[in-house]
Amino acid sequence: MKAFMDEDFLLKNDVAKTLYHTYAEKMPIVDYHNHLSPKEIYENKNYESITDAWLGGDHYKWRAMRGNGICEDKITGDASAWDKFEAWANTVPELFGNPLYHWTNLELKRYFHIDTPISGSNAKEIYDTCNDLLKQESYTVRELLVAMNVEELCTTDDPADSLEYHLKLKKEETRFHVRPSFRPEKAMGIRKAGYADYIQKLAEVSGHEIQSYNDLIEALKIRLDFFYEAGCRITDHSLEGGIYKKCSSKEADEIFKKRMCASEEHPDTAEDELYGLSKEEEVKFKGKLVTDMAKAYHKKDMVMQLHIGAMRNNSTRMFEQLGPDAGFDSEDDFNYATELSALLNEADKTGELPKTILYCLNPKDTEMLGSMLGNFQDGSCPGKIQLGPAWWFCDHKTGMERQMQSLMDYGVFSRFTGMLTDSRSFLSFSRHEYFRRILCNMVGEKVESGEYPWDEKFLGQMIENICYYNSKNYLGI
Amino acid sequence: MKAFMDEDFLLKNDVAKTLYHTYAEKMPIVDYHNHLSPKEIYENKNYESITDAWLGGDHYKWRAMRGNGICEDKITGDASAWDKFEAWANTVPELFGNPLYHWTNLELKRYFHIDTPISGSNAKEIYDTCNDLLKQESYTVRELLVAMNVEELCTTDDPADSLEYHLKLKKEETRFHVRPSFRPEKAMGIRKAGYADYIQKLAEVSGHEIQSYNDLIEALKIRLDFFYEAGCRITDHSLEGGIYKKCSSKEADEIFKKRMCASEEHPDTAEDELYGLSKEEEVKFKGKLVTDMAKAYHKKDMVMQLHIGAMRNNSTRMFEQLGPDAGFDSEDDFNYATELSALLNEADKTGELPKTILYCLNPKDTEMLGSMLGNFQDGSCPGKIQLGPAWWFCDHKTGMERQMQSLMDYGVFSRFTGMLTDSRSFLSFSRHEYFRRILCNMVGEKVESGEYPWDEKFLGQMIENICYYNSKNYLGI
Amino acid sequence: MKAFMDEDFLLKNDVAKTLYHTYAEKMPIVDYHNHLSPKEIYENKNYESITDAWLGGDHYKWRAMRGNGICEDKITGDASAWDKFEAWANTVPELFGNPLYHWTNLELKRYFHIDTPISGSNAKEIYDTCNDLLKQESYTVRELLVAMNVEELCTTDDPADSLEYHLKLKKEETRFHVRPSFRPEKAMGIRKAGYADYIQKLAEVSGHEIQSYNDLIEALKIRLDFFYEAGCRITDHSLEGGIYKKCSSKEADEIFKKRMCASEEHPDTAEDELYGLSKEEEVKFKGKLVTDMAKAYHKKDMVMQLHIGAMRNNSTRMFEQLGPDAGFDSEDDFNYATELSALLNEADKTGELPKTILYCLNPKDTEMLGSMLGNFQDGSCPGKIQLGPAWWFCDHKTGMERQMQSLMDYGVFSRFTGMLTDSRSFLSFSRHEYFRRILCNMVGEKVESGEYPWDEKFLGQMIENICYYNSKNYLGI
Repeated sequence: MKAFMDEDFLLKNDVAKTLYHTYAEKMPIVDYHNHLSPKEIYENKNYESITDAWLGGDHYKWRAMRGNGICEDKITGDASAWDKFEAWANTVPELFGNPLYHWTNLELKRYFHIDTPISGSNAKEIYDTCNDLLKQESYTVRELLVAMNVEELCTTDDPADSLEYHLKLKKEETRFHVRPSFRPEKAMGIRKAGYADYIQKLAEVSGHEIQSYNDLIEALKIRLDFFYEAGCRITDHSLEGGIYKKCSSKEADEIFKKRMCASEEHPDTAEDELYGLSKEEEVKFKGKLVTDMAKAYHKKDMVMQLHIGAMRNNSTRMFEQLGPDAGFDSEDDFNYATELSALLNEADKTGELPKTILYCLNPKDTEMLGSMLGNFQDGSCPGKIQLGPAWWFCDHKTGMERQMQSLMDYGVFSRFTGMLTDSRSFLSFSRHEYFRRILCNMVGEKVESGEYPWDEKFLGQMIENICYYNSKNYLGI
Repeated sequence: MKAFMDEDFLLKNDVAKTLYHTYAEKMPIVDYHNHLSPKEIYENKNYESITDAWLGGDHYKWRAMRGNGICEDKITGDASAWDKFEAWANTVPELFGNPLYHWTNLELKRYFHIDTPISGSNAKEIYDTCNDLLKQESYTVRELLVAMNVEELCTTDDPADSLEYHLKLKKEETRFHVRPSFRPEKAMGIRKAGYADYIQKLAEVSGHEIQSYNDLIEALKIRLDFFYEAGCRITDHSLEGGIYKKCSSKEADEIFKKRMCASEEHPDTAEDELYGLSKEEEVKFKGKLVTDMAKAYHKKDMVMQLHIGAMRNNSTRMFEQLGPDAGFDSEDDFNYATELSALLNEADKTGELPKTILYCLNPKDTEMLGSMLGNFQDGSCPGKIQLGPAWWFCDHKTGMERQMQSLMDYGVFSRFTGMLTDSRSFLSFSRHEYFRRILCNMVGEKVESGEYPWDEKFLGQMIENICYYNSKNYLGI
Repeated sequence: MKAFMDEDFLLKNDVAKTLYHTYAEKMPIVDYHNHLSPKEIYENKNYESITDAWLGGDHYKWRAMRGNGICEDKITGDASAWDKFEAWANTVPELFGNPLYHWTNLELKRYFHIDTPISGSNAKEIYDTCNDLLKQESYTVRELLVAMNVEELCTTDDPADSLEYHLKLKKEETRFHVRPSFRPEKAMGIRKAGYADYIQKLAEVSGHEIQSYNDLIEALKIRLDFFYEAGCRITDHSLEGGIYKKCSSKEADEIFKKRMCASEEHPDTAEDELYGLSKEEEVKFKGKLVTDMAKAYHKKDMVMQLHIGAMRNNSTRMFEQLGPDAGFDSEDDFNYATELSALLNEADKTGELPKTILYCLNPKDTEMLGSMLGNFQDGSCPGKIQLGPAWWFCDHKTGMERQMQSLMDYGVFSRFTGMLTDSRSFLSFSRHEYFRRILCNMVGEKVESGEYPWDEKFLGQMIENICYYNSKNYLGI
């Protein structure tokens, strides 16, 4: 029996051990997609408690606790920090096979040097140990990042954001870079509340009046320039419920103007209509905006991320209670091969498709996406179109293995840009370790079983590339 | 080489062997979903022959025989019991990797103490041995159940059923309980033949005149009370071809009344219309009925089962010859994430969503469903929303492993309510053994490879819970 | 560590080794679906160079090269044969885990006796060695086929084809048979350019004037007779974007006539219309044609292949540059369970469904198709409805294992008709070896782990059947 989570955790063969310990382990971290707060990094805060650090906003853990029968009071409610922590500690052992079990115990090990798996019986001791450590100077946000060998961080930011903290950090912090990502989600949210207010804000920030769809694109481009200057090299878009339907600039303009005239007070204008717009009009508008912006990204050699298939806020009751991002999202299952192809083709037609990362949230789409890559690889750079790493609900051993196996089966594996955390927590960088171990194990297994020759020089380099160099080169940083 | 089907069948590591032989093996069976006949249990019949017991109604075996080139005469036709048995015996060895191969040989072993895999060459000997045993008193239906350590059985029953045999059994049989399940399939079948007659019958049995949709719900609730009194704690619904579209009581009432006025003689009233109703009206009506009944189940703390994705009676020719449930069904592949979410949300909105088990028939939906659970877990009990075990076409090692791995990846595995047979045969309880071996093997593998620590006390209890206690607690029996 | 690609390549256990080396290895090849040129076989040409043989038309390799950042000039452009070859040699090591890595090195081994994995560093040496060999008489197309133990080849042919080279070969070549396959793709392509011209050609070749849909079917049947006489026993249909919608002969006739009157110059007659026809009309027409032809195939006891789910020519830019089949296709993801069931049922209703092989291109559909088989197995022959082997994008270890595991889980594995290359290259017959090794390994693993008894006689026969006899019997050749 292998010991639990020892130095060879998840490494089941000798090649894997060599690849991990000699090559993967030492590589710095390029976390090119996360939801960390640049303000918190700049202010370099200490967490008040491990409850704050772990359970303050982590809806992955909240979901697991609800599934384990923990009442909401001890999750997002008024229970004490200790009561919440204890409820979590009681839940962890129940999560047999769940990535949270590994993440949690790996975080305890790497950040707090605690080697015993957490459970109800040692919860108090661990609580006290962690809380003591978190008060120390070496546990400020920035020191945690340095300790984890983080070199590059790409946060997620709205085009209207001032990037105040990014700019301040750029001047002050030299040990790692914090870069904004350009995510025009609110500009795409034509059927969401407060759209006109947002457009007004964007117009002000960009100094470009927005009266039309073309003005909107112009304003976004002005902000893209600003983001680029601040170090941004990557963009992000969540495509939900529909991806693309051909739409002219004229149509996009009509849709935009209809929305700008709509009343905020009566969103339900007709059955299946919101703010005077049908679902189809929303898909058209969003698809048009994404393809127009894609061309702008291409011009600056930036990366476009497309995250496909989230289904959000499924429980109305809990949405009203807690708002979004509280653990009530899940995987959608709509089909989108033809629409995605058309979207990518729209930019590719004129040779203006940027480097693109395609992420699916429903693993059934992995192979379809794997086969999609090849349609738009154009030889301009290795791995121009990427199959994004296993993400959110898929971010576990099963999901990572499926994503990597698909990339091997359909694409050029050595060009993979590797892992990201997509996290809101400064304690989650050990997930890169988790990924790297799984990566080395998969590669090792194929070598051990005679499916690829043992060429340490080549494979060691490939591992280093996937862990670090590929993403750096891809982002051009 | 491991011996075929010895005591460590499917147990590939030491932890698995310990978990199975010390914990899983001895647990009684709670079979919370099957299609056994309460009448046959009450009458405690002896089978006439192994052909009768095995091939009389088992369309899994029929399909396999057809695929093996056996003519219909030896399957459902007039061939002799021996000829049918021999045709089956000849087919079994061809089923390399098929669960029927394992089920069949496991049934021979557990029920008839036959250790040699069946084939054409030993068919006659096995036929005679089984037939001799089946005449003995220890081979009556009830003795078979006792011998297999069955403690709880939930049969599948129509709300209009008198439950005569359940009530008789309740008085007489103390060694195990036979409980009805409430399955209002006929009440939902608004586009099926004979609907009005069924409604008439339901009205009579419930003593509640049914003139409207509300009357229908009322009558069903009366029957639900009656079922509950008879020991029922679980309900069942097959959702096919569409799941949910928002529908008011008024609309449901109009649809109901349209159907009640329709002529039985001319079902095809227009293209894509049956009995004056469109497919969409059927989806609306069924979804409304399920959500209204869901609230009634919640009130009584009963369990709601949703079985999604069967596609039935695909061969018109064979349907006309043999009727339904003859082996001509398969997996549908429609998308339903948004509709299922809306259905569950409809009941959850008012806090009236009952404990719910979600089953998919197409394994591509496993992960989507796995992620759906968390949207409606509310901490009211551990594992309130369950990912149902691998079912029907998925009820094999591949399917069980995928379902359990998904539950580990997405949910709280230790709260899983475990296996059911969904069977029509009294000889199929060894499938619980099959499941338990696969369960212990999966858990064992993760422990052996260092992914979870070897904590025998915790894991032994987890295995006992999944095999037995979880389902008992979940049903409240 | 297992040596790379030694004699036990992919064979990880003793049973697998026995099954492969004693049974599988020696069986002749029946390649019942490929795209080889009968003209090239007849003319028995020598390749000019390994670049010509390997990279002349193989869009699998082109895609991989593009993904590796190779410019188009070295793929389909004007670069020299050596530059192209070197670009490919540099790409191969990057394809960790990709089937092209195995195929390429296996082809070097079997055809050219080169045991060192190809890379940039040995590219020149390998280039020269191969080119020298390719000039030899033993490297003509026919000698290569004989050397690989090919016994039967089914090429892919248009009904209007004269079959000139098939007929010549039939007279002259006795060491193997080259049979045409009947693929009425152009007759189905009602919304494709040049339809009327094609119909005209078909009328001429068949000697049957085509004024109506019924004439079209009649002409196709005349050609089917001619193909049958030439040795054809199998047909093929690619179903894309939609499969079936009920359509009367009258409707099909109207659609046909509408198209025959349409102008070739203005294909876009309205939004979503091509040549005056909607997508739905196309689906109706194609489905009707397939079911009518299915009945004709049944009459002659021929095999019908249905290939489902290709999405073609996704990059407009590259289509304009290179035309079709240049590596810009991928997997579609539409749902089709109900439509496929209706199509098969349409022919089955009257007992006229031929032997049918169902292929999916998106692996998410594998299990659904696996369950579909049983709906239409009728006992007329073993394995009448087949789950086609892993194909195109799925033709790798992962895909083959998934297809075979599904067939085991859902069907009668021993009746599987096994592998085909779907290839355009005379160097790709080592893929049968690749398949056979994976097959033997899967079977061996189940035996070694005690899931099936070690019955060498039965299993050896089963392996021979799957490699060879089943496809011969199924085709009746």
